[in-house]
Amino acid sequence: MNQRANEPKVTLVGAGPGDPDLITRKGLKALQTADVILYDALSSDELLEETPDHCVRIFVGKRAGCHYKKQDEINALLVASAYEYGHAVRLKGGDPFIFGRGQEEKAYAEAEGLDVTVVPGISSCISLPELQGVAPTSRGYADSFWVLTAHTRNGGLSNDLLLAPRSNATVIILMGLGRLDQICALWDAEGKGDLPAMVIQNGSRPNERAWVGTVNDIAPRVAAERDKGPGIIVLGATVSQHPDFKARVLATTSNAR
Amino acid sequence: MNQRANEPKVTLVGAGPGDPDLITRKGLKALQTADVILYDALSSDELLEETPDHCVRIFVGKRAGCHYKKQDEINALLVASAYEYGHAVRLKGGDPFIFGRGQEEKAYAEAEGLDVTVVPGISSCISLPELQGVAPTSRGYADSFWVLTAHTRNGGLSNDLLLAPRSNATVIILMGLGRLDQICALWDAEGKGDLPAMVIQNGSRPNERAWVGTVNDIAPRVAAERDKGPGIIVLGATVSQHPDFKARVLATTSNAR
Repeated sequence: MNQRANEPKVTLVGAGPGDPDLITRKGLKALQTADVILYDALSSDELLEETPDHCVRIFVGKRAGCHYKKQDEINALLVASAYEYGHAVRLKGGDPFIFGRGQEEKAYAEAEGLDVTVVPGISSCISLPELQGVAPTSRGYADSFWVLTAHTRNGGLSNDLLLAPRSNATVIILMGLGRLDQICALWDAEGKGDLPAMVIQNGSRPNERAWVGTVNDIAPRVAAERDKGPGIIVLGATVSQHPDFKARVLATTSNAR
Repeated sequence: MNQRANEPKVTLVGAGPGDPDLITRKGLKALQTADVILYDALSSDELLEETPDHCVRIFVGKRAGCHYKKQDEINALLVASAYEYGHAVRLKGGDPFIFGRGQEEKAYAEAEGLDVTVVPGISSCISLPELQGVAPTSRGYADSFWVLTAHTRNGGLSNDLLLAPRSNATVIILMGLGRLDQICALWDAEGKGDLPAMVIQNGSRPNERAWVGTVNDIAPRVAAERDKGPGIIVLGATVSQHPDFKARVLATTSNAR
């Protein structure tokens, strides 16, 4: 018996960095016409309320104490859900295609004969520094930005991470907080120990926290104060635009008098 | 006489890449409470309709045949508008802080005593490749992405652009279409003539167009077919995921048989 309300199709939606108001209007419209939703972002509780009453809600994410589904299982469940219920929305934190494995879900669903629509999301890598007052690019501070993860699939530091300290880019590193020491050492070895540096945890959420310093002094303080969750690292002159950094420079100048 | 409906304040809003549904819910809410709006993105006509009837609309952008205001004039007008009318929304295409000079407008308004709220937008540099089926990062294709402009303020190619061909990043170049030949030559000199390459114009709009090829063959075709407007360049293995690239490889394979 076929219970589908709509033709089977998939919409991959970026939920944004955490604040439920940072989803796009197009993403909201997708939620409002979903017959089934597969979700994982911590932000999603408020966004789930946008789905119709008949919409089936399936949690496929990582959360303390919960089972975490493997990517293969998520792919298969997404396709099966669309064929069973109709419009399947896959809601993913941030942007689905920035370290989000959205491309794998899209390719799998298309290979299984489904139409897939893509709705980009506000990526954490760009928006979280901005919400702290730091622009990824800013005239006179940074002409480019480079977004990396700290580790490769093999567990080593990536070649790009070894090259990045030689660039003038604002470097934004995801999934690297556990290796902050190692990362800062790479920049220090390039003679950039005084480069402004920032770490953000729980960005755009009520418990957002940021640390601002330099390559040479940020790691120990963050290690002592951070929570166990993920965070993003920002290295570059543009971090000097953060209000805490400005205050610190003023304080140092005043002590020197 | 003070005509202000609200306390003077500024909200910097990213409009997204063109499709008016790619603005965030937070951005929409800002528009709906604007007393004055300063806009420039081509996308804005439909978004302007979200502002209240009493909202004063000021065009400050570049458009064929229109006067283009200098950044200093825009900064001053933004501040004066907030003090005159109340809630001033500065609507900017894409994300305000990716080559958008949003940081300068924010700093200026804050220095003039105004509260400034930041609403990130969907950046063209990430979303336009995605809407073409190309993920900036994708497991097995690219572990990082790097966003640059082709030129520096002095008019030369930036040092980062010289370094970028040595990385494994998906490299996304804005404002570089006029120098596509020169850019491709940098990658070719690094032995990357066969690297997949893509150019997009009018992304997310009805007249969107994309060209897919390799570093060695994309420039002449784009030069012959492009319109005069801006475009973005994407260089990296991840471009091989574009449907046209796959079709081309299949066609080549089939010819070789």
